[in-house]
Amino acid sequence: MKSIYLAGPEVFHADAFALGRAKQALCGAVGYVGLYPLDGAIEADATEPRDLARSIYRSNIGMIRAADAVIANLTPFRGPGADVGTVFEVGFAVALGKTVLGYRNVVGSYADRVRIWNGADFGGDADGRPTDRDGLLVEDFGFGDNLMIDAAITVFEHEAAASLTDLSGFTACLKRLQALLPP
Amino acid sequence: MKSIYLAGPEVFHADAFALGRAKQALCGAVGYVGLYPLDGAIEADATEPRDLARSIYRSNIGMIRAADAVIANLTPFRGPGADVGTVFEVGFAVALGKTVLGYRNVVGSYADRVRIWNGADFGGDADGRPTDRDGLLVEDFGFGDNLMIDAAITVFEHEAAASLTDLSGFTACLKRLQALLPP
Repeated sequence: MKSIYLAGPEVFHADAFALGRAKQALCGAVGYVGLYPLDGAIEADATEPRDLARSIYRSNIGMIRAADAVIANLTPFRGPGADVGTVFEVGFAVALGKTVLGYRNVVGSYADRVRIWNGADFGGDADGRPTDRDGLLVEDFGFGDNLMIDAAITVFEHEAAASLTDLSGFTACLKRLQALLPP
Repeated sequence: MKSIYLAGPEVFHADAFALGRAKQALCGAVGYVGLYPLDGAIEADATEPRDLARSIYRSNIGMIRAADAVIANLTPFRGPGADVGTVFEVGFAVALGKTVLGYRNVVGSYADRVRIWNGADFGGDADGRPTDRDGLLVEDFGFGDNLMIDAAITVFEHEAAASLTDLSGFTACLKRLQALLPP
């Protein structure tokens, strides 16, 4: 049975386990197995914080290697961009040639989101391109995040009230996956 | 001659080209070739913004595949974590088995940085773990960023006034690289 690694920052949510079960149920309903990071096996002797972190890392990487596909929640997290842990996993999976899809529970461009974060009008560089409060160029290709993410994979965007936990985008990814990589 | 892909958000700096040349000079001085993203070949017919973005993506990915190593500037960018474009590249390169090193021109833990971003005291979950203003768990393994980055690679940390552009951490990476992967 084909498996999907379920990447995303909902592992930090108070209902993290229930959210994973909900995704796994959606996967199971269409014939895939969902691999959820919090189900990983952590070495029992990993008690020191950094050892524990490395054990979690190895567990996640093992699940990505074992998976046929990855569906990633790329909703902005503590800033205008996606969760960096999730983005690392997306880059890792793309390099391995896995089928990778993403969703973002907000619409609008990355530049628009940086504008809000900026808290002031953009400046401009010598070529008239927008710059943020630190004088750094704001990329604006019409994508919802950095081009290394949105030029790499298809990202389904959808405005959701429950921005971190809404599963409409996840369901759209599952539907596309059934065409790309039938269960 | 072994080559190093020079990943980092200084491509968004007003002095982006000069910063790349400075890194390439440091690489050259110890026998490596530095591959800088802005030197990539962009397809001439890529004029529509998203086509241009995809062309840049392919160019960057091609350079990473060609490189023997990656040195990444992981200094926090528009929030408590690293630039997501750089993080994608790190994950991609780790998956390919490249030698990857990083630097961060600030010291302190990710949790400390989230505390500043939070703008208020942390809350606590049912297990007494810290939560941010959105009720989301703040991971605290003593690392300077998400464990998927800092458990994957060695990150040299250094407090620098010019947080985005200081090259002390880059020089430390180069020195370590000479031991790991002699030129």
